[in-house]
Amino acid sequence: MIRSVLLHDGKITEDIDPAKWKEVSAKPGAVLWIDVQSPKRKAVKSLKDAFGFDDISLEDTRSFSLLPKLDTFKDYAFVVIHALGYDEASGAITRRELDFFIGKSFLVTVHVEPITTVDKVFKEAQKSTAVLERGPALLTHIIIDRLIDLSYQMVDVFDDDIEEMESRIASGQMEGIVDWQLRVRRALLLMKKSIGPQRDVLNELARRDSPLISHEAAIYFRDDYDRLARVYDQVDTNRELVAAAAEAYRSMVSLRINEITLRTNAAIEWLTLFASIFLPLTFLAGVYGMNFDQQAEYSTPGFYPMLWGVFGLITLIMVVFFWRKGWITILHKAEKLDFVTDAVEREKPKT
Amino acid sequence: MIRSVLLHDGKITEDIDPAKWKEVSAKPGAVLWIDVQSPKRKAVKSLKDAFGFDDISLEDTRSFSLLPKLDTFKDYAFVVIHALGYDEASGAITRRELDFFIGKSFLVTVHVEPITTVDKVFKEAQKSTAVLERGPALLTHIIIDRLIDLSYQMVDVFDDDIEEMESRIASGQMEGIVDWQLRVRRALLLMKKSIGPQRDVLNELARRDSPLISHEAAIYFRDDYDRLARVYDQVDTNRELVAAAAEAYRSMVSLRINEITLRTNAAIEWLTLFASIFLPLTFLAGVYGMNFDQQAEYSTPGFYPMLWGVFGLITLIMVVFFWRKGWITILHKAEKLDFVTDAVEREKPKT
Amino acid sequence: MIRSVLLHDGKITEDIDPAKWKEVSAKPGAVLWIDVQSPKRKAVKSLKDAFGFDDISLEDTRSFSLLPKLDTFKDYAFVVIHALGYDEASGAITRRELDFFIGKSFLVTVHVEPITTVDKVFKEAQKSTAVLERGPALLTHIIIDRLIDLSYQMVDVFDDDIEEMESRIASGQMEGIVDWQLRVRRALLLMKKSIGPQRDVLNELARRDSPLISHEAAIYFRDDYDRLARVYDQVDTNRELVAAAAEAYRSMVSLRINEITLRTNAAIEWLTLFASIFLPLTFLAGVYGMNFDQQAEYSTPGFYPMLWGVFGLITLIMVVFFWRKGWITILHKAEKLDFVTDAVEREKPKT
Amino acid sequence: MIRSVLLHDGKITEDIDPAKWKEVSAKPGAVLWIDVQSPKRKAVKSLKDAFGFDDISLEDTRSFSLLPKLDTFKDYAFVVIHALGYDEASGAITRRELDFFIGKSFLVTVHVEPITTVDKVFKEAQKSTAVLERGPALLTHIIIDRLIDLSYQMVDVFDDDIEEMESRIASGQMEGIVDWQLRVRRALLLMKKSIGPQRDVLNELARRDSPLISHEAAIYFRDDYDRLARVYDQVDTNRELVAAAAEAYRSMVSLRINEITLRTNAAIEWLTLFASIFLPLTFLAGVYGMNFDQQAEYSTPGFYPMLWGVFGLITLIMVVFFWRKGWITILHKAEKLDFVTDAVEREKPKT
Amino acid sequence: MIRSVLLHDGKITEDIDPAKWKEVSAKPGAVLWIDVQSPKRKAVKSLKDAFGFDDISLEDTRSFSLLPKLDTFKDYAFVVIHALGYDEASGAITRRELDFFIGKSFLVTVHVEPITTVDKVFKEAQKSTAVLERGPALLTHIIIDRLIDLSYQMVDVFDDDIEEMESRIASGQMEGIVDWQLRVRRALLLMKKSIGPQRDVLNELARRDSPLISHEAAIYFRDDYDRLARVYDQVDTNRELVAAAAEAYRSMVSLRINEITLRTNAAIEWLTLFASIFLPLTFLAGVYGMNFDQQAEYSTPGFYPMLWGVFGLITLIMVVFFWRKGWITILHKAEKLDFVTDAVEREKPKT
Repeated sequence: MIRSVLLHDGKITEDIDPAKWKEVSAKPGAVLWIDVQSPKRKAVKSLKDAFGFDDISLEDTRSFSLLPKLDTFKDYAFVVIHALGYDEASGAITRRELDFFIGKSFLVTVHVEPITTVDKVFKEAQKSTAVLERGPALLTHIIIDRLIDLSYQMVDVFDDDIEEMESRIASGQMEGIVDWQLRVRRALLLMKKSIGPQRDVLNELARRDSPLISHEAAIYFRDDYDRLARVYDQVDTNRELVAAAAEAYRSMVSLRINEITLRTNAAIEWLTLFASIFLPLTFLAGVYGMNFDQQAEYSTPGFYPMLWGVFGLITLIMVVFFWRKGWITILHKAEKLDFVTDAVEREKPKT
Repeated sequence: MIRSVLLHDGKITEDIDPAKWKEVSAKPGAVLWIDVQSPKRKAVKSLKDAFGFDDISLEDTRSFSLLPKLDTFKDYAFVVIHALGYDEASGAITRRELDFFIGKSFLVTVHVEPITTVDKVFKEAQKSTAVLERGPALLTHIIIDRLIDLSYQMVDVFDDDIEEMESRIASGQMEGIVDWQLRVRRALLLMKKSIGPQRDVLNELARRDSPLISHEAAIYFRDDYDRLARVYDQVDTNRELVAAAAEAYRSMVSLRINEITLRTNAAIEWLTLFASIFLPLTFLAGVYGMNFDQQAEYSTPGFYPMLWGVFGLITLIMVVFFWRKGWITILHKAEKLDFVTDAVEREKPKT
Repeated sequence: MIRSVLLHDGKITEDIDPAKWKEVSAKPGAVLWIDVQSPKRKAVKSLKDAFGFDDISLEDTRSFSLLPKLDTFKDYAFVVIHALGYDEASGAITRRELDFFIGKSFLVTVHVEPITTVDKVFKEAQKSTAVLERGPALLTHIIIDRLIDLSYQMVDVFDDDIEEMESRIASGQMEGIVDWQLRVRRALLLMKKSIGPQRDVLNELARRDSPLISHEAAIYFRDDYDRLARVYDQVDTNRELVAAAAEAYRSMVSLRINEITLRTNAAIEWLTLFASIFLPLTFLAGVYGMNFDQQAEYSTPGFYPMLWGVFGLITLIMVVFFWRKGWITILHKAEKLDFVTDAVEREKPKT
Repeated sequence: MIRSVLLHDGKITEDIDPAKWKEVSAKPGAVLWIDVQSPKRKAVKSLKDAFGFDDISLEDTRSFSLLPKLDTFKDYAFVVIHALGYDEASGAITRRELDFFIGKSFLVTVHVEPITTVDKVFKEAQKSTAVLERGPALLTHIIIDRLIDLSYQMVDVFDDDIEEMESRIASGQMEGIVDWQLRVRRALLLMKKSIGPQRDVLNELARRDSPLISHEAAIYFRDDYDRLARVYDQVDTNRELVAAAAEAYRSMVSLRINEITLRTNAAIEWLTLFASIFLPLTFLAGVYGMNFDQQAEYSTPGFYPMLWGVFGLITLIMVVFFWRKGWITILHKAEKLDFVTDAVEREKPKT
Repeated sequence: MIRSVLLHDGKITEDIDPAKWKEVSAKPGAVLWIDVQSPKRKAVKSLKDAFGFDDISLEDTRSFSLLPKLDTFKDYAFVVIHALGYDEASGAITRRELDFFIGKSFLVTVHVEPITTVDKVFKEAQKSTAVLERGPALLTHIIIDRLIDLSYQMVDVFDDDIEEMESRIASGQMEGIVDWQLRVRRALLLMKKSIGPQRDVLNELARRDSPLISHEAAIYFRDDYDRLARVYDQVDTNRELVAAAAEAYRSMVSLRINEITLRTNAAIEWLTLFASIFLPLTFLAGVYGMNFDQQAEYSTPGFYPMLWGVFGLITLIMVVFFWRKGWITILHKAEKLDFVTDAVEREKPKT
């Protein structure tokens, strides 16, 4: 899809015939913007014929294959940047390559997929002469500036997201953290990888003082650079915060396992104590419930109360033995082990 | 909010009319300081009219959007730094952008939110001629110097905090460590991200020997740089110490789980031994408590004592079997496994 | 194995006698390509005699011993790159050294093992004059270009692989992740180590504007560089994603252990409660099943119902005790502990 | 505390009156060393009066506030280094700032806290003319050289410490590792942060060939640099080794937990088997120990032996069921699970 | 220990008197190699007298105190490298400092401990004139070349070692991994720290085109550099692979704990079910085995069969309750939990 808009003598003309591109852009004071989406061979040929772009750059525009970069040629500059977007459906970051050919009197933007920001600016250029009047370099700045605004918004969303996650982890709500982490890490990584070289491109543009990029444009690119540097810094900060949160999450899960293990231990020690007392006792009671004729104990005087004494003795031995092992955790709010439980209590939501 | 203070002929005048800014700052020997908080369009316009600041810098001062940086123009330098603060209520670090326009005879400070340090210095400048006498560049130094003092204090608080945490972890007190970690990591990260570029700005200021920044001022900025470098280094050190503490904490939690698991194991082995002995015994006792007419054993002579022999034999077999498996951990201070318990003992507070 | 192809006067001649290499490559307009596989001493000598290559480079071509690099000599450039491949049998990355001697009228490629891409281009050169016509430098570009295409494909496979793994981890399917991780990490590391210096070589080639490498060839190498830079970036991104996935995997395993531990705890608490109730009760029942003549209780009126009262009392005490300890987790969908189970539920596949 | 020593005409004079510093240091061939500890305002003033040191450097000497650095002025060089020490009581590293003012004929050393090395060299200078004869720059070298010797010793202590820890971890002795780690990491980090910039200072000194630092002195500083570079390298190596040891420690704790979990599992499976057999059996025996008049089974011929058959059948079913589940781990040296135990065995001390 | 070998007029002379070193090395065409092991004061003096080496370099040769480096003086170059070795007894890497003084007509090698490679080359020099004929610079290259060969071999051993470890971890054999890791990490770290600066020294040598290092020698050093760069790269790769393997190992141990925990859980749930059924049943049977005269139930018609009904009811309630809780894991190949077991199965050796 090719569309174009021309400003000449204060008049806006749309959809210029490719055959006339060369001619109209050569007119003094004319500014021509050509936006090409999903470039076909034919479009590429038209561009080459009109402006003499090099084959390789043109070929590269047809696929998403390059990192952000700036190549300067005699009559034009070739700029590759990535338009970042957020796909709400999948919660994923999208990266779309956007190529600029910046000439003295023309701007060619090429992209494989539609980019909303380019669309909007193009429509503004169709409506008002104010947009094209600023010239190809500042037109580039306008588009990049809007894309940086989008990045600011995206990074703000992550800021809030991470703060919320931190407070959820600190308060022990652990739903979906693993999944969230994977998603956010991927998104931030893609942003970083995209913004890093983009920042360098802007830095280069800001330092270039050529017929293509006026001193004024350079100053604007410098401001774009400063703002993108801050976005980059924020992405980097967020990446570290997510990593710290991931670690804190793992600590928290360990602490939970610790807490549960403690409770299990208390229950098992109690069970063991009870079994240690009552298994022998029940056995003895069973023995004297047997029906052997020979069980002379049945009629031995004093044997029955003595047996109660034995019951008591066994119980006493077991309780003392467990007590000295410090194993009747269930009975006291265990002094030795409660630090962990305390920790868990304190980690819980404070509200 | 705009306020200004002028020193001229040794006299201090306050709240100069914006319309006269240009005029008064042009007088020989005059020093004018304008402090603008939450700049509105009108304030921005006044500044532009009076000093001819560039639009982009002025626009940037209206939001918190830049990393610390230094831009030099013909008649003034534009400096962005971050004033760090500590919000006691939330325990969080605050970063506030503070912009300086340093001219030959004027200083303009712009910030969105109030900054206590700027307030204090402004009040001093209103009271004593000594402050403004030093000129715009050294005035900038004074403000930055005070902000660095604050950073020193903040970093000292973290130093103490971390040392205390280390000793708490080493002594097994684990309350609130995860939460603490998240908080401190975030704070240190923000400090690092803010101080790093700020240090670079100071380095640039220290190397500039221009009409705006005198040789004397450069030396002071150099000292600011040295001191901020130390703060930065300390922040970096603290970040590593917190990371190490976080790791130690995880090791400690694992060690606790290990300890509890060991105790649970000892209890379960004991329980299993008791059950292995008394379940068969009780079953046998139960069998010979049955009331079948056919149970000829009841009257078989010697069966009853023989049964006691069987009871003893079963017990013996079980005890020997468990002993050889090395499973009666509860009885001896288990030689094979006590290294962990020892470790835990030693890790406990030494006081 | 040595094979050669010569283009001269629009005619293709194959397998030139090594003795004539020097002569034919000296003819104006001739382009000679010699491909040497597993070079023997004799081949090395022929090359030295014909083109005067330095001993050390020639010696190095006989083993896989160098990182990608570019050495420029008076009459030729010596380029070492690695041809990356994917061995489907073992799932491993293969790295094969490929050495180029780029002269004005000749190209010598040397490799120890066969490289499919070189094979294919060689066959094309035998069939069509179009290949050799472009000259040694662009011939080098063609081979490198195809190798980069292969790298793109490999990196795309990893992209898909990682995304699938991420969704498998997030949905709790954990088969073979450890093994997969080790394999992918090794592969990505080897790619990175190979592509990094290769990118630098292309960058150097792109900046060289010499009789050996024409301005046109330099532009093509620049494009190769840009494309390889993107592959490198993607490899780097993938490495970070795999590391994040590995961490997420460990978190997930911990979460599973947590879940199982919770269930075990609930079962054990229930068991302990039941044992705490019924062990004493069964003991008492056993006592009053004993056959002692002295057991006056048997005929004491009201003792039997009273015993039922005791049974009830013991039950009540135990239930209340456990209830207050909050230990009858099995009965209610435990409020205190269900957050983990919830987390596990939510982490499960959403489809 | 101020002390000074002067070498002039081969004679040593001590404690020169501050008022005469300027005068005596101006004499040809004189070498004056002034050592100031915990500088007071007065001392600072004396130094300024005598040598004209800049205010800022003098102010900085009064607190521990700078990283190692080198500032060159017209008549003197200002050098800040850190003297590292090891506090045996607390096992912590101490860092003390040591400032040098190196002039042509004088050396001023300033430090807040006492530094043993400076003390020793000062006493040597009081005893023998050989020390001061070498001049201020080489005097500086002598002090720094001794401090580097100390660093070598400290780093050697850590070397041995780490090797011992590694072998203790590998052999399963785990006492106090967490605490040790925290302490050593902190110490190594402080050393690194201190030595890094110090090394840079020495590098600068070695490259300076000025009236203050003779060519000979520069060579000695170069050697100091080389030696400190090695210390730095060793500190870095140790940091990585400690990190690796910390990781190994965590792996070892996990392996222990694994081992204990395995033993617990075996005990529980055995307990479950026994309970599964004897709980039903004991119940049945209990049933036929009941005293109901209606229990016709008591007199049914063959019921009693049949019951024994039932007992046997239940036992058989349970044993077969557990056997097929592979759950009677206690009986065989479990084939499926013993790899871990083996691992644990092998990890144990080999002596 | 000092030994020397001189080539002059095609004749080899051994053990030249130190007093004649200066004289013989001054003869045109002479090449003198002096190898000094564990240098004593006397040897150092002889070297100084003969060649005028600087004191500091000479002093440094007497201890193992420097990182690899290159210092160029007027008449000689001072090169420090580390000879890496592998001590088979302890499985540890050894690093021995080897110092070269490269003059126009002499080479002095100094080392504290014996170095096999130097020994071998020295013996060759004693036997054949071909070695010394190449001159001091190429002699240095020969020794370094051999040392690099050794490094290649060492790094290949680690390559194989790591691949074996990876497959052992992936197949669940976990013997001695922790110990192995610590050892290999230490070895690779030492190699890296040694090879890094050594590579830089070679790079410097390769760029030096001086009377001491001929253009030819520089080319050879360049090749040494290329080859050492590959060793360095391989060491780096191995370090990352070991780190990845260590992580995989920890994941594997966690997975094992998970597996065992699952089995324990199944056993405990089964035990709890059985106890929940038979503890109440056995109690009831015990109650009706009591001998109270008042137990009218004994003669109540229908009570006995009703009791069987109660037995059945309790059993039913328990089974249904556990079934609905999804807790009878032992009975079915648990659908909900088997993913982990599956994972474990798949992770096992595939052969």
